Amino acid sequence: MTTFNLEEYLTYWAKKTESWLRDNLLYYNEQTVGLTDSMRYSIMAGGKRLRPALIYSAFGIFDNDFDKIIPYASSVEMLHTYSLIHDDLPAMDDDDYRRGKPTNHKMFGEATAILSGDALLTKAFEIMLDPEINTDVDVALRAEAAHKLAVAAGDQGMVGGQYADIQAEKGNFDERTVEFIHKHKTASLLGYCTELGAIIGYGSEDDKKRLRKFGMNIGLAFQIVDDLLDLTSSTEEMGKDAGSDLKKGKATYPGIYGVDKSKLMAQELVDESLALVECYKPASRPLKEIASFVVNRKK
Amino acid sequence: MTTFNLEEYLTYWAKKTESWLRDNLLYYNEQTVGLTDSMRYSIMAGGKRLRPALIYSAFGIFDNDFDKIIPYASSVEMLHTYSLIHDDLPAMDDDDYRRGKPTNHKMFGEATAILSGDALLTKAFEIMLDPEINTDVDVALRAEAAHKLAVAAGDQGMVGGQYADIQAEKGNFDERTVEFIHKHKTASLLGYCTELGAIIGYGSEDDKKRLRKFGMNIGLAFQIVDDLLDLTSSTEEMGKDAGSDLKKGKATYPGIYGVDKSKLMAQELVDESLALVECYKPASRPLKEIASFVVNRKK
Repeated sequence: MTTFNLEEYLTYWAKKTESWLRDNLLYYNEQTVGLTDSMRYSIMAGGKRLRPALIYSAFGIFDNDFDKIIPYASSVEMLHTYSLIHDDLPAMDDDDYRRGKPTNHKMFGEATAILSGDALLTKAFEIMLDPEINTDVDVALRAEAAHKLAVAAGDQGMVGGQYADIQAEKGNFDERTVEFIHKHKTASLLGYCTELGAIIGYGSEDDKKRLRKFGMNIGLAFQIVDDLLDLTSSTEEMGKDAGSDLKKGKATYPGIYGVDKSKLMAQELVDESLALVECYKPASRPLKEIASFVVNRKK
Repeated sequence: MTTFNLEEYLTYWAKKTESWLRDNLLYYNEQTVGLTDSMRYSIMAGGKRLRPALIYSAFGIFDNDFDKIIPYASSVEMLHTYSLIHDDLPAMDDDDYRRGKPTNHKMFGEATAILSGDALLTKAFEIMLDPEINTDVDVALRAEAAHKLAVAAGDQGMVGGQYADIQAEKGNFDERTVEFIHKHKTASLLGYCTELGAIIGYGSEDDKKRLRKFGMNIGLAFQIVDDLLDLTSSTEEMGKDAGSDLKKGKATYPGIYGVDKSKLMAQELVDESLALVECYKPASRPLKEIASFVVNRKK
């Protein structure tokens, strides 16, 4: 087996994604330059690009023509960015910094932040369904990809999770609430990412189901580790206010289960994921490396 | 020609749409009951249901199997409702009343209003692309319908128009700005509505183009009349604060061109629309009646 360097892999695909986004999030009209600026500011603000990496890794099991999947990975990153912009708003989590930079509404004002979130969400669907961009992707697969994105991102997915998260801050919450929040707010979209690789790669229904489960597990583990890091890291390491979950009374895994049990739960989820994709070896190498990174990361 | 009563026509189709929405905007989970309540509150708050009426009227030119188009008309109404919820937010137009009732954020708080807007926008795509709901609609048409919705609603459409509108409040604006705002904020989605009827009705590319132009014109006329009504109506008649555009320094047609020229422009747009759909007679009757209603309405 050839050597595999996860950091190089992530950097390579992050650059590919960012390059596509830079070339395709264009200035449409002089009347809306500020809107496009605001959209580009948040989408180009860096980050791990974990979602695109999961999409490329899953797609790579089925197909090596990565040009097909880049617009899809970029669309998911647009949708993820919209969720960050709206989550940071004063009426929501009220965060001033994101990835070490001022949040969108701090830079552009609340109205523009709301609108650029709306525009990025809408553009994710526009790009996925664009027949001129996706000439090599069958229309049935484009439609399936966009439909499942809507399910993963809407009231039965990510938005539902964010709603429950904000409600939980107001009062008491139990294990079921914490599980609901993390499954919906984070795991739903990550499960979609790995399934998306199988959809555009002409995978079978079994492939889609297996990879969806893989991504859901990784998403849940990712969120548990996020909660743990929030407790233990400094503000500088996290690029956002550390310990802010605790201050806000957020529903977290360590808050419910304690640090040790939470660590164990994250590890078990990742172990289960590794077993799930064993059947694809050695093509599952990038997915496995990402899974291990998710539990072992320090920020 | 049989008698045609526009009021009965609008009421009939508004009820059909509302009934579908009531049955399909479901309570997903006990954790998100408040989110669903908020979505349902705004979507069931009444209104003319002009967009669905345009969709049914255009579709009726090509096909009488209206069960096919109801989910699409309902999706567009979801998307329209999201735009109203977000437009009313304190950071945007800061309106307390809509259709005579408290706005969404007044009833449910800002965070829930932002999220229910996000969820309704996402759900519009979810419904349009759902293979189980739209069993009788070819997947290529589903994808085309959803793709064009994203273009009409996003940064190159409705969201771009709303952004320019808010920017215009801050300073000077000219004719080009007012035209950009109205074309994008309102006409873009109305042009989509009439084109959508042709898409799901298996219309030709010429049909789509013609009906899109019809809807764009009607949308622009609708907005000019809205500006005129805002100047002349009482708060009670409008169901929102009358004269509020003027107070906010909004970019309006009468503000740029004066009342008389604005009235003339609206009439000319409608006349051009009537001529466009002449070729479909008598199937164009509902569309023509709606066009005339748009310029002659009193609220």
